[in-house]
Amino acid sequence: MELQHVVTGSDDKKIVVIVGAGFGGLNAAKALSNKSNVQVVLIDQKNHHLFQPLLYQVATAGLNPADIAVPVRSQFSDVDNVAVHLAKITVVDLEKKTLQVDGSDNEFGFDYLILACGARHSYFAHPEWEEYAPGLKTLEQATEIRRRILLAFEHAENELDEEKRKTLLNFVVIGGGPTGVELAGAIADISRTVLVRDFKRINPSTAKVILLEAGPRLLSAFSEDLSEHTRKALTSLGVEVRTHVRVENITAEGVYVGTDFIPTKSAFWAAGVQANSLNLIPSVDRDPSGRIKVRGDLSIPNHPDIFVIGDMAAIEMADGKLVPGLAPAAIQEGVYVARAILSSMQKKPRENFHYWDKGLMATIGKNKAIMQAGNIHMTGRFAWLGWFFIHIFYLIGFKNRISVLLQWTWSYVFAKRGSRLITEKGWKLSQQKEKA
Amino acid sequence: MELQHVVTGSDDKKIVVIVGAGFGGLNAAKALSNKSNVQVVLIDQKNHHLFQPLLYQVATAGLNPADIAVPVRSQFSDVDNVAVHLAKITVVDLEKKTLQVDGSDNEFGFDYLILACGARHSYFAHPEWEEYAPGLKTLEQATEIRRRILLAFEHAENELDEEKRKTLLNFVVIGGGPTGVELAGAIADISRTVLVRDFKRINPSTAKVILLEAGPRLLSAFSEDLSEHTRKALTSLGVEVRTHVRVENITAEGVYVGTDFIPTKSAFWAAGVQANSLNLIPSVDRDPSGRIKVRGDLSIPNHPDIFVIGDMAAIEMADGKLVPGLAPAAIQEGVYVARAILSSMQKKPRENFHYWDKGLMATIGKNKAIMQAGNIHMTGRFAWLGWFFIHIFYLIGFKNRISVLLQWTWSYVFAKRGSRLITEKGWKLSQQKEKA
Repeated sequence: MELQHVVTGSDDKKIVVIVGAGFGGLNAAKALSNKSNVQVVLIDQKNHHLFQPLLYQVATAGLNPADIAVPVRSQFSDVDNVAVHLAKITVVDLEKKTLQVDGSDNEFGFDYLILACGARHSYFAHPEWEEYAPGLKTLEQATEIRRRILLAFEHAENELDEEKRKTLLNFVVIGGGPTGVELAGAIADISRTVLVRDFKRINPSTAKVILLEAGPRLLSAFSEDLSEHTRKALTSLGVEVRTHVRVENITAEGVYVGTDFIPTKSAFWAAGVQANSLNLIPSVDRDPSGRIKVRGDLSIPNHPDIFVIGDMAAIEMADGKLVPGLAPAAIQEGVYVARAILSSMQKKPRENFHYWDKGLMATIGKNKAIMQAGNIHMTGRFAWLGWFFIHIFYLIGFKNRISVLLQWTWSYVFAKRGSRLITEKGWKLSQQKEKA
Repeated sequence: MELQHVVTGSDDKKIVVIVGAGFGGLNAAKALSNKSNVQVVLIDQKNHHLFQPLLYQVATAGLNPADIAVPVRSQFSDVDNVAVHLAKITVVDLEKKTLQVDGSDNEFGFDYLILACGARHSYFAHPEWEEYAPGLKTLEQATEIRRRILLAFEHAENELDEEKRKTLLNFVVIGGGPTGVELAGAIADISRTVLVRDFKRINPSTAKVILLEAGPRLLSAFSEDLSEHTRKALTSLGVEVRTHVRVENITAEGVYVGTDFIPTKSAFWAAGVQANSLNLIPSVDRDPSGRIKVRGDLSIPNHPDIFVIGDMAAIEMADGKLVPGLAPAAIQEGVYVARAILSSMQKKPRENFHYWDKGLMATIGKNKAIMQAGNIHMTGRFAWLGWFFIHIFYLIGFKNRISVLLQWTWSYVFAKRGSRLITEKGWKLSQQKEKA
C-alpha cells in the first residue's frame, strides 16, 4: 500500500505517519494540521476516535456508542495535509522507515513516526479468563458488557429456580481503579433505579454487585481520604467492596477469590493494563507492562525521528515515577511531539517533555464523584458537577456534546436509560469469546 | 418454563400469550393493557421493538440503532397485567395450547394466542446469496449493511489499482420495492453529499448505485405515474435503475444479471419476503410465501382462540387481494384481535376484520417522497414533509422522537451524518454470513 502521495526524502515536505487515533494520535495530527512543510498520514484500524473515559456509560446503557465516538475522517475534512487511512499495521521497520499493512504487500514510508496505539487489558498470564470476564477498552467490549448485564436480568426474570436466579443477579467487577469503581457504581445504580420498574417477577434491586481489589484500597492513585470516601459511597449504593483479595480463577460458573467462590455469570475485568504490542524491527526496550521506554523527548533511543506516546509509552518523570496513563497526559504528549517534529525540521534543539498534572477525577454514581488536584480534595455534588462539565467539554464533536447533555439530563430527571438495546448474538446468555 | 403466574382455565382471568413484539404484537398487548380479566404474556426473542420503516436510515448512517428501537419491557413498566419475557419459541401445540421454549424443558400455557412473528427476506431457493447480499429486516442487518457501505469507501481510499477501486465503489441494490428504493436513494445521497468532503484520494460521488428490479417498474404497489416519478427522481440522484432484469447469481465477486455481470463487493437484498416460520402442531395451511391462511376474524381455521397477524398472516380482503404487509395493517390487526378476544370472553359474536387503507408512502431522498391515498397522488417537498412528520409521530418513545428530529435537522442543515460508526468484525471487508 505504497501510497502515491506519501513520498519520503523531500527537503521541503516531510512525511509524518501517526499510528493510532486515540487522544495522543488525534491531537498530534491536529497540532500538525495545515503546517505547509508536513504531510500527515493518520492510520487506525478503527474508523472512529473513542472517548474512553465514558465507555463505562455505554456498558451500563447510559449512553449510545455513537455518543462517545466520532469518525476520525470527519475531524480532518477541511485539512488538506492530513490523510486518514483505515488499516492495521503489523510490522514497523525502524531502520528502513517503513510500515507493513495487514493483508497487503505494499508499505507506508515515513520521515517521522508517532506510535500511539494505546493499551489493552492484561489478564496476568490467564488469557482464558477474558471469555468469562471481558474488559472495557473498546466499543465492542462495552456493548458486550451491556448485553451481559441486561441479559442477566432478562434470564433471571424467566428463571423459576431460586438459587439460579440469585446467581444470575450476582455481578462481580475485578479491579478497584477508576474503571472498576465507575462500572460497579453504575451497575448498582441502574439495578436500583432504572430497572426496578420494568420487571414483574424479580426485584432488580436485590442484585448483588461485588467489587474486588487486590491492593489495600480502592483508587490507589488518589489520596487515602478519597479512597475511603469512595468505599463508603459505593457501599451506600449497595456495592460490596472487598480489598486485599486475590482472584485465583474465573470460570463459566463464577469467580474464585482466595478460598471463597462467588457464583456468577457476569464478571467484568478492570484490573491489569498492557500496552498494545506492535512488532518493531529491531526490537526495543519495554517495561513489564509492554510499554516502550522512551527518552526525555519521547523518542525511541537511537531513533530520534520515531516517537511513542500515550499508554504505549513508559515516560519517566523527574521524580522517577511514570507519567500516568490518562487522557490529559496523552493529549499533552501528542501536542509536544508535533512541536518537537516541527522544531527538528527547523534544526532547532528539542526541550524535554514536561507533564503538567491537572489532577485526577472519578465518578461513583449520580451526584457522587471525587476530584484531587494538588492539595485540593473534593467530593460530593460539586465534584460531580465538575466531572460532568469537564467530560462534556472534552468530548469531541459538538453534536456528541449536545446529545450527551440531553441524555444525561433526561436520565437525571426521569431516572431512565434509553440505551438498553441488546443486539448481536441474540437472546442466549452464552459467554463467547469476543471477536475483536 | 411453566411460569408460576401463567395459570390456564380460570373463569375470571384468561391468559393471552402474544409471540412477537413488532407493530402487531405490541399494539395487541397495549389494547389489552389494564383489562382486569386477562393476563398478557408478551414474548419476543429480542429485547426491543423495532421501527422497521426507518431501518434503511440506520443502514445508511443517518440514524443510530437506539433511535428506532425501544425496550419492549419499558413500554409496560406501569401495566400490571402485561408480563414481558425474552425467549425464543420453537413449537406451538395448537391442541394442548402450549408453547415450547428454546433451551428449556418448561412450557408456556395459554387460553388465547396471538402469533405475530413477522417476516424475513426470502432468497428464492438461493440461501447462499445471503452472505453476499444481506437483507434489511433487523438492527444487526442494518449495522452490517452500514459497515459494508462505509468500509467500501475506506478500502477504495487505500486501493491503488484503478479497476479494483471502481469495483469497490459499485453498489447494487436488488429489489425495487420501497426498501430498495429508499436504500438506493440514500446510498447515492450520502456518497454525493456527506462523504465527498471526507476523502482525499477518491471522489465518493463517482460511486455507482445500481437498482435492479425484475418487474416492469419500481414500487409496483403504487400507481404508474408515481413509479415513473420515482424512477426519474432516483436517476437525478445518480442511481442507475434497471427494470425487467433477473438476478441469475450473486457471488463474492459480484452480481450476474441476465447475461451481464456487475463486479461489486456491496450487494444488498430487498427483493422477496417470507413469513417467519414457527413449528405449529398440527400443521396449518400456508401460502407460497409461508403466510398462514386465516379466517375473517384472523383466527386459524378450527382454532378460534389462536390468531395470526401482521406479516405472518395471509388475510384475504373482499376483493380477493391480500392485506398488504405494512405497519398500519399490523397495528389495525393487533387492536382488532385484542378486541375480538375481549368480545369472546363476554360471549359476544366477533365481526370480521376490516382493513382501513390509509394509503402508501415512500421516500426517495432529501425533499423527495411520494404519497398515494385513494385518488390523491402527491410528490415532491410536500410529500416529503408528510413522510417526515408521520414517521416522527409514529415512532415509539418520546425520547426517540426528539432524538430523530434533532438528527434529521442536523443532517438537513449541515449535510452531515453522525452515525458513521464501523463496529464489530474490525476493519476487514470480509463478507461473512450474518450470525442473526
